Amino acid sequence: MSQLRQNLATKEWVIIASERARRPEDFVERARPRCHERPVHDERCPFCPGQEDQSEEVLRESDGNGGWRARLVKNRFPALQPEGDPERRHDGHLRSSTGFGYHEVLIETPRHHGCPATESEGQLALALSLLQLRGRQLADDHRLEHLIFFKNHGPRAGSSLAHAHGQLAALPVVPFGVRVRAEEARRHLDNTGRCVWCEIVQAELEQGERVVAQNERFVVFIPYAAYSPFHLWVVPRRHESSFLRATPEEMVDLAAALRRVLRKLYVGLGDPDFNWVLRTAPLRDEGRDSFHWYIAIVPRVSTSAGFELGTGMFINPSLPEESAAFLRSIDPGEAPDVS
Amino acid sequence: MSQLRQNLATKEWVIIASERARRPEDFVERARPRCHERPVHDERCPFCPGQEDQSEEVLRESDGNGGWRARLVKNRFPALQPEGDPERRHDGHLRSSTGFGYHEVLIETPRHHGCPATESEGQLALALSLLQLRGRQLADDHRLEHLIFFKNHGPRAGSSLAHAHGQLAALPVVPFGVRVRAEEARRHLDNTGRCVWCEIVQAELEQGERVVAQNERFVVFIPYAAYSPFHLWVVPRRHESSFLRATPEEMVDLAAALRRVLRKLYVGLGDPDFNWVLRTAPLRDEGRDSFHWYIAIVPRVSTSAGFELGTGMFINPSLPEESAAFLRSIDPGEAPDVS
Repeated sequence: MSQLRQNLATKEWVIIASERARRPEDFVERARPRCHERPVHDERCPFCPGQEDQSEEVLRESDGNGGWRARLVKNRFPALQPEGDPERRHDGHLRSSTGFGYHEVLIETPRHHGCPATESEGQLALALSLLQLRGRQLADDHRLEHLIFFKNHGPRAGSSLAHAHGQLAALPVVPFGVRVRAEEARRHLDNTGRCVWCEIVQAELEQGERVVAQNERFVVFIPYAAYSPFHLWVVPRRHESSFLRATPEEMVDLAAALRRVLRKLYVGLGDPDFNWVLRTAPLRDEGRDSFHWYIAIVPRVSTSAGFELGTGMFINPSLPEESAAFLRSIDPGEAPDVS
Repeated sequence: MSQLRQNLATKEWVIIASERARRPEDFVERARPRCHERPVHDERCPFCPGQEDQSEEVLRESDGNGGWRARLVKNRFPALQPEGDPERRHDGHLRSSTGFGYHEVLIETPRHHGCPATESEGQLALALSLLQLRGRQLADDHRLEHLIFFKNHGPRAGSSLAHAHGQLAALPVVPFGVRVRAEEARRHLDNTGRCVWCEIVQAELEQGERVVAQNERFVVFIPYAAYSPFHLWVVPRRHESSFLRATPEEMVDLAAALRRVLRKLYVGLGDPDFNWVLRTAPLRDEGRDSFHWYIAIVPRVSTSAGFELGTGMFINPSLPEESAAFLRSIDPGEAPDVS
């Protein structure tokens, strides 16, 4: 029989559909070559070394030798542009704002066949640090209300370029999906005196069956009310509302934890398409201590359809406990290393 | 420059990304054969006549000749089951409910190559009426809180069977996405004394540039803050919170309006994959008159990615006004007729 589970942080319900349950192995990706099977360099790729003039650079991590280890560049087709000021207009029922904001791209590695799972921990740490640095710069722009960091890996995750890249968008509004989480967290703090994510992390560690990996500063687990198969959370143990205030030591441990679980996915599911999104407190509410930043990883191994669209509620055809056990059993050391 | 637009009914922001804007013709589907190119009968199809014993029937519309024109059957892999009572459990941070509910399938036509765009208006009307009839039956079950009706058309919309079918799910909770809409509508009524959807319909009719089709009882338009290209609303002119109380005359006009716009999509975009979802008031809040039922059609012509996942906010790479003009220019009479 199916079970409904509620996400304690958002109060959203998810259907864990045992009648449709599939084994972890059923989700193995077979649609495209895996990353490490690509060439180390592709001269037609706009993100490969030698094509630097195809993108406008914002920041770079130099290799000390005239080249680079990671670059942050402007998106060539930005969803938002840093021109003019954000201005809200109410014209009867038509409510709009100018599309003020930033939309930038992180080129994570110079190697065309690299990705977070196959590059070194150090490479991932410096790429993530470049995102954090740029986020800190943008936070000073008081026209901005929110920063979102994310990665689309593979075509099913919405990526049109194979070369490993992340993205950063800076918004003049707090998006609805963020506001809801912030408000629920605030309410939980008001009701219980505790951060809801701290509480969840502690409970998951005590129970253990959904935990996939951990190190000194981070815990990786499949949430009890996971939206979809292998939906994962990478959460810092230290309570902190903003990613922008993560310490250098935390950045190192974040890279280690994220890479470890991505390597498990790479080996166990055959380099699946996935998104990760970094959830952090809205910029102007940082004084509110109720948020807790974290990364959510969502492999694209199932399709959401009319039910999800009509309800905002997900049907998950896998058991979180079973998926977590599968991932624990995978040796991340089996993933190739390209760096 | 991009523009942010706000949905007046939900207060959600959408980015209309002109830098990424594509022409309406760029969204034409080429991935699979169109419906009418399939055979009229497929003996391996569990929804074709002759395979009735493969599904447990709940209701049928007879053809008066021993056969059927439409059938409502139990889902073979239901997300929810009508066993036991819904029971909520709080076990520390683990909150769950038994998966009580109903999950049924509407076989819309006996013809394997039929779909709402290519079948007759009468055929679509009787199929929709079967959904309404079943909804009314289920509404009497006081363990249920919400009904959702939807259709997945094509693999990108999450459909694994080609034969035209819709679905119905009956839930023991009010899903988050529904509750948010109901609460926003209530607030709008409190603030203005008017139904937000009635207001939107009137404004769209006055302005006209996003209207695609209309008849005596329904208006079809692309919302000002459309989530995605060719996202469409089919809204009854008469204020009514529940689909279950739509009149027989409205059911006829609903079929006509829905078929007309689906034929335009079939001709103009080459039978794209799409979902439609019918949004109706929660069952136990029917006294609250602030909801207004309608159908949303979402063609699957673009991919949502990390940005949408992280923000709940959509990037729409098309101009609603341009897409509406394109659809107005399409002659629905050019669609094939299989019935």
